Amino acid sequence: MDILKLRALAEQFFADIRALSSDGIGVTRDSYGAGESAAADYLRRVAGQHGLSVQSDKAANLVFALPEEDGGAPAAWVGSHLDSVPQGGNFDGMAGIVAGLLCQIARKGQATSSAVPLRVIAFRGEESAWFGKAYVGSGAALGKLTADDLALTHRNSGRTLAQCMVAAGADVDAIAAQQPLFDRAAAAAYLELHIEQGPVMVARKLPLAVVPGIRGNVRHNRVTCIGEPGHSGAVPRWLRKDAVFAVADLIGRLDEHWKVLLERGSDLVVTTGIVATDPAEHSISRIPGKVNFSFEVRSKSLDTLEGFYQLFRTECKAISRDRGVQFAFDRRIEAAPATMDPALTELLRNACARAQLPVESLPSGAGHDASLFANAGIPTAMLFVRNEHGSHNPDEAMDLDDFMLGTQVLYDALEALPPRG
Amino acid sequence: MDILKLRALAEQFFADIRALSSDGIGVTRDSYGAGESAAADYLRRVAGQHGLSVQSDKAANLVFALPEEDGGAPAAWVGSHLDSVPQGGNFDGMAGIVAGLLCQIARKGQATSSAVPLRVIAFRGEESAWFGKAYVGSGAALGKLTADDLALTHRNSGRTLAQCMVAAGADVDAIAAQQPLFDRAAAAAYLELHIEQGPVMVARKLPLAVVPGIRGNVRHNRVTCIGEPGHSGAVPRWLRKDAVFAVADLIGRLDEHWKVLLERGSDLVVTTGIVATDPAEHSISRIPGKVNFSFEVRSKSLDTLEGFYQLFRTECKAISRDRGVQFAFDRRIEAAPATMDPALTELLRNACARAQLPVESLPSGAGHDASLFANAGIPTAMLFVRNEHGSHNPDEAMDLDDFMLGTQVLYDALEALPPRG
Repeated sequence: MDILKLRALAEQFFADIRALSSDGIGVTRDSYGAGESAAADYLRRVAGQHGLSVQSDKAANLVFALPEEDGGAPAAWVGSHLDSVPQGGNFDGMAGIVAGLLCQIARKGQATSSAVPLRVIAFRGEESAWFGKAYVGSGAALGKLTADDLALTHRNSGRTLAQCMVAAGADVDAIAAQQPLFDRAAAAAYLELHIEQGPVMVARKLPLAVVPGIRGNVRHNRVTCIGEPGHSGAVPRWLRKDAVFAVADLIGRLDEHWKVLLERGSDLVVTTGIVATDPAEHSISRIPGKVNFSFEVRSKSLDTLEGFYQLFRTECKAISRDRGVQFAFDRRIEAAPATMDPALTELLRNACARAQLPVESLPSGAGHDASLFANAGIPTAMLFVRNEHGSHNPDEAMDLDDFMLGTQVLYDALEALPPRG
Repeated sequence: MDILKLRALAEQFFADIRALSSDGIGVTRDSYGAGESAAADYLRRVAGQHGLSVQSDKAANLVFALPEEDGGAPAAWVGSHLDSVPQGGNFDGMAGIVAGLLCQIARKGQATSSAVPLRVIAFRGEESAWFGKAYVGSGAALGKLTADDLALTHRNSGRTLAQCMVAAGADVDAIAAQQPLFDRAAAAAYLELHIEQGPVMVARKLPLAVVPGIRGNVRHNRVTCIGEPGHSGAVPRWLRKDAVFAVADLIGRLDEHWKVLLERGSDLVVTTGIVATDPAEHSISRIPGKVNFSFEVRSKSLDTLEGFYQLFRTECKAISRDRGVQFAFDRRIEAAPATMDPALTELLRNACARAQLPVESLPSGAGHDASLFANAGIPTAMLFVRNEHGSHNPDEAMDLDDFMLGTQVLYDALEALPPRG
């Protein structure tokens, strides 16, 4: 079957999901919340209408299968995530799920298929924006979620991740026990199609790109710089312990280190996405006694991640001495960098070539559920689809023609996958 | 009468006012709000009990008088403010009002007095913390409040200053017309007793100090740095327009200029009391597209104020070029530096000497209602009382013995004031 004939169906899926998760500005599908569950319910319904079976795992992720492929043979898994950041775009995550479902629907149209069985998995809770922790659904599936993770709280409601997971139907006792919910032996491969989240493919006019590896990260959701409040007019410079000047100094120093490390050829991005004085006590005429901020470093090299993190802690110590402030750190959160499987990646490259598309490699700066599968020892590959204006914002824009090309390449690679064992 | 005998009454006033404005952490007397009005109502009642007359002016400031001094002769005015910052201390402002009332009560105990008539004025809305504008009550009294000022909004409720003033009983039409509510010709002098808001008097063991001048300031309540949001992992450094890095850079540059200007002998303090990414869209994995922050510079020199402000704007332009961001500025707000009247100041110094106290000068880093009276051409003087832990915080601590010495010095200076005209 020519999968490009499913274009109208793809368009319908995206339009319906956008409508049900619109927030007036972008789309909001909160992790283990109402928006994400509404998208899950929709997919469950339409998958059933197309003859697919749907089950939930113990982390409330959805698993889609072709009933006629219900044997015990190891399957190829295609996955991505249901959730979005607040006021995000419609395609980040959802494109990979819809692509997987289209592959299953296309395969259903075939009389027979000798291909490896195909499962699609729709993860919950991939975005760190809601609980300060990424890959919740896929992490739980692989037995990697901890009791500390489950105690994290929702950015708005303050409810714990455990409470929200239970409300979405998850079995948190099984998750807290770190039982793998996913049988690695039953997985021949994990593939993920995802929009590119940076500006490179648009600039280079590439509809698709194959991902050789994924950056890891080290994060603190909240670092607190504690100085000493005082009247802004009455405390001279040498007696001040100003938390805003201290944090500005810290960020300036990190910026310098970042620049130098890039010049030396390191792969590195550094971000402080959140900074805030305390609204309960700050004012224009008060020396700020407290600033909260987030810290994130990403790299494809574990050494670079660790090295930059140590620089960060060292500079915090130096600024504490220089400016009479203190820094308090919440839990360090990390995600390891990941390398994609060369053989599986080659199947995607071959499929690109067969479709007469340029065969290009592009490392992923953003993290993906695929990282966890690669680091769990499951052969993993990723395909990027061109997307304008980045992601995590309402202006995210993927051309449906590019998406259908990506789905075709994914489908071809899955058909070409040799049976395992 | 020995004014020190009124110590128990002073203690009672402060304790009662603290109790009625306690917020559980410090005291909160919001400008033209419930906390400030509660303090005003209390003072109105106790002043009546002590035989003082009380009137409100058109800005809802309270004016206390001795009925027997109700002639037309120019009066000496003693004033300070009713309001506090959120979670502030009990003495910032209130000490000056209580001192004035004690002087009136002491004078009432006298058989006759040949002194200049004494009025006490309790201003509303001195603290900029609530509407982003200081000296609202005294500014209105002197016909200096503008329609723009009246349109400023409350930090929490979003109500306009005009709405809150009307609710407190003010006549905003008269204020908007910039009619002086206060007859300058009827004022022989303006005196203000205030706690020191910095650490100098405690360090130098001075119970009192006479203020030769008051710093002015230039402010923006809200400057917005606008960059470009994006996925933190997917946009490389050279393509970023990161608003947090830009603002950190700006604050770092201002810190450098500040240091250099101090080395050159300038009088200068610089504060960014408020910094915040947008809670509706910020996240740890999102390049921050927007940061709001406040800007304040204070100096006793108009030239230094203007020079530093121009440096600030120049650095904003330079950072816009360097980092691809833009800065948007709300209204520039300014308060002129003020010089105290030498003859009136000499009366305070003489009274200190008579009380066998060290006679010390200490410029005021913080602004005061007194600045406006000085700059309106009314002979003005100020007396500082020692206070620990600064002000604008719940730990503010004035010793009642120091306060009573200050009240005695104020009383003596008032008695020594030659009748005008």
